[in-house]
Amino acid sequence: MTDTLTPPETAQSETARSLLEEIREAVGAGDVERAQACAHRMLEVDALALLEDLAPAELSRLFAILGDETLAVLLSRLDDRDAARILTRMSAAQAADILEEIDPDDATDIFAEVEQANPTAAGTILVEMEPDEAAEIRDLMAYEGDTAGGIMTPAFVAVFPDLRADETVRALRQVAEEAETINYVYVVDRDERLIGVLSLHNLVLSRPDRPVADLMTTDIVSVPVDADQEFAARLLTERNLLALPVVDADGRLIGIITQDDVADILEEEATEDIERLGGSQPLDTPYRTASVALLVRRRLGWLMFLFVAGFLTASVLEAFPPSAVLIPFIPLIIGTGGNVGSQTVTTLVRAMAVGEVQLRDVGWVLLKELSVGLAMGLAMAVVAFFRAGIPEGREIGLVVAATIVCVTLWSATVAAVLPLLLRRLNIDPAVVSAPLITTLVDATGLLIYLSIAGAILTEV
Amino acid sequence: MTDTLTPPETAQSETARSLLEEIREAVGAGDVERAQACAHRMLEVDALALLEDLAPAELSRLFAILGDETLAVLLSRLDDRDAARILTRMSAAQAADILEEIDPDDATDIFAEVEQANPTAAGTILVEMEPDEAAEIRDLMAYEGDTAGGIMTPAFVAVFPDLRADETVRALRQVAEEAETINYVYVVDRDERLIGVLSLHNLVLSRPDRPVADLMTTDIVSVPVDADQEFAARLLTERNLLALPVVDADGRLIGIITQDDVADILEEEATEDIERLGGSQPLDTPYRTASVALLVRRRLGWLMFLFVAGFLTASVLEAFPPSAVLIPFIPLIIGTGGNVGSQTVTTLVRAMAVGEVQLRDVGWVLLKELSVGLAMGLAMAVVAFFRAGIPEGREIGLVVAATIVCVTLWSATVAAVLPLLLRRLNIDPAVVSAPLITTLVDATGLLIYLSIAGAILTEV
Repeated sequence: MTDTLTPPETAQSETARSLLEEIREAVGAGDVERAQACAHRMLEVDALALLEDLAPAELSRLFAILGDETLAVLLSRLDDRDAARILTRMSAAQAADILEEIDPDDATDIFAEVEQANPTAAGTILVEMEPDEAAEIRDLMAYEGDTAGGIMTPAFVAVFPDLRADETVRALRQVAEEAETINYVYVVDRDERLIGVLSLHNLVLSRPDRPVADLMTTDIVSVPVDADQEFAARLLTERNLLALPVVDADGRLIGIITQDDVADILEEEATEDIERLGGSQPLDTPYRTASVALLVRRRLGWLMFLFVAGFLTASVLEAFPPSAVLIPFIPLIIGTGGNVGSQTVTTLVRAMAVGEVQLRDVGWVLLKELSVGLAMGLAMAVVAFFRAGIPEGREIGLVVAATIVCVTLWSATVAAVLPLLLRRLNIDPAVVSAPLITTLVDATGLLIYLSIAGAILTEV
Repeated sequence: MTDTLTPPETAQSETARSLLEEIREAVGAGDVERAQACAHRMLEVDALALLEDLAPAELSRLFAILGDETLAVLLSRLDDRDAARILTRMSAAQAADILEEIDPDDATDIFAEVEQANPTAAGTILVEMEPDEAAEIRDLMAYEGDTAGGIMTPAFVAVFPDLRADETVRALRQVAEEAETINYVYVVDRDERLIGVLSLHNLVLSRPDRPVADLMTTDIVSVPVDADQEFAARLLTERNLLALPVVDADGRLIGIITQDDVADILEEEATEDIERLGGSQPLDTPYRTASVALLVRRRLGWLMFLFVAGFLTASVLEAFPPSAVLIPFIPLIIGTGGNVGSQTVTTLVRAMAVGEVQLRDVGWVLLKELSVGLAMGLAMAVVAFFRAGIPEGREIGLVVAATIVCVTLWSATVAAVLPLLLRRLNIDPAVVSAPLITTLVDATGLLIYLSIAGAILTEV
């Protein structure tokens, strides 16, 4: 069947409901064909989460009907945590069979979630797995989750340089099932050090009797096992590679990172940046499954810090009580400072994240932001002059207008310089959230307002 | 040479300077080997932008020395707009030669930038190109940039179902150079309708005399040509495909989307969301090359809207002048409301963008956000009670504490419901920026503050 997919959305929940009914019936009746049709349908409408609604006994029977390969496909489409939850509701033997069918890097990620939630169950599953595949998972668990080691798979194909093209194709035929990609064949020396790479299509299109040493390119891009996952993902993308080899400190090939992981990593990093920019610590887990307690833990720290930092505004207003005529414009002025800061900091932090702006760019970045800030500040000042001046008189209009320009420039400066300064101090610039800039600019914005008022107004 | 790459950063600008010198010398001396070494080094240290510093005459000579293929590799590593700028500084014939060497989808993106900047130059380049390749670009230009059609490449391999495996391999050998990927061979009927797909490794590993009809799978996932590019990119990622076929309204295969485009699309979409969440319209161009005028155009609209909306706070304070003792806490209260709103809206808009949260989830989302808001509001209220109560008395402490809880809950509600409401109205929820929530909550937060004060304080 050819499915030309368009985005779902409408009436999805009813579909999901009736699909769940159908799965239950198929499982109850032991109807293989219908169960398979349901599995296919679940993939199609992206309703894998339905598996979570099945009771353990139903899951067990579904497993018996569909077999481990099909279930592995279904589970690997789910979020790691959801997949882990379903696995722990099966018998250890069934869970082990399914994990064996999933690519080792993905299986490790799911296994890590099982271990976190239920270490005993995880131990039992590992015992039930084939020794080789359990060892792969154990090895991969040793690497930090956000490094090249944490996302690589050991399922690559490597040959010695004296193997002939046709022998290599024959060898491939035997391992094709196991390997995650056979787009590249890697060439290693007797010490397992990476010395060349060869694409499948070069191999297929070349004369059968040539040794791979003649066909391989030695111009290889690889990453060390402890490189940051985001760096590896960007490298893979920028170089248009289908896979990137990972080497240990001695240059030995220990894994590859494949294209299918790149999108996930970049999405994950973008999500982290967005959450940080909004003023939370990254959740590191899907919002859907994040508990209230976790959300509070991730948000309260920054919120409380900003709250206490906000006391400064109260202190400024207590120390220098503004005249009544100035009060109505306080929220407008500090709000505008915050909005300008938010625009600047989000654009800039993102540009830094994708590598467009670096430390040495601070000069032109500041100049650009100040020019933009000046233009926007002047435009708003004109409006402010009339809004404040008409009810309160020309002098107040002037004070508010001048304050808007100054606060806009000040806010643009803080938002432009702070992320670059943090990068300089080796702190992730994404910790400079929009709320942080807003809070920083609030108290200083008030001081600017009160100083300008003091200078312009004849009687305060 | 094997390069194990680690992130650059330090002292990059000096490297870039001396590299530019070296390129100039190599070009001046007509030294092919040195120019090639420089090109390789530029790729290595990611300093392609150096090409922009070369004069047209130098570029021309570099082209003559390195040849169109190498320059094509260099240019395709650059941002489209930068690549376009370099192309327009070469002769039309040279630019045409280089574009022919770039994959048609990427060439089209670069060409679109040339056309936007300089329509005459673009026309001349098209005339200079080989008719076939000019036609491909012209065809691809017809599709909207952010649809499946806009990112697909026509460089796929398609065969009829009765071709044998060995004949297909032989055919592949002939087109491998032209095709963007030979990981999949597509099978079409006599009307060009897509009926099956076959992976290269299936082809290689199967018996030579079998027709592709027996080897292909008919379980194909494809997208219509007008599907949103983000939808296509996510589908490719979720299904772990290396390429996704694109079909027209009659089911005819007209292009494929390959993995290498996915990361770019997802990055682009994440950047747009981040810019929107910060309160700007998306730049649609790298920050580095965005002019001050463009930045102002993208930001001023929202900023001015929020500025004028902020007048409401002034009106509230003019209509209900607060007693002097309440004034110092105004910025703190509205700032906190804004911070809570920013945390909630960024997390939620992102969760909606990656498809975790949908319209029907409004119930549990609101419940979750209210629970989180209540916990955080109570924590801050305790602190607020002492900060306000110690200098100003127990009653004021109580007013500020109660206001913090109410404003936090209110802000969480607005930030949780508004994005889902907009999705319901078919508006991109990412237009709900943190500044918008902040501004919306400012005036209402003031009203809450003044009402609570009116209720609690014995004399106002």
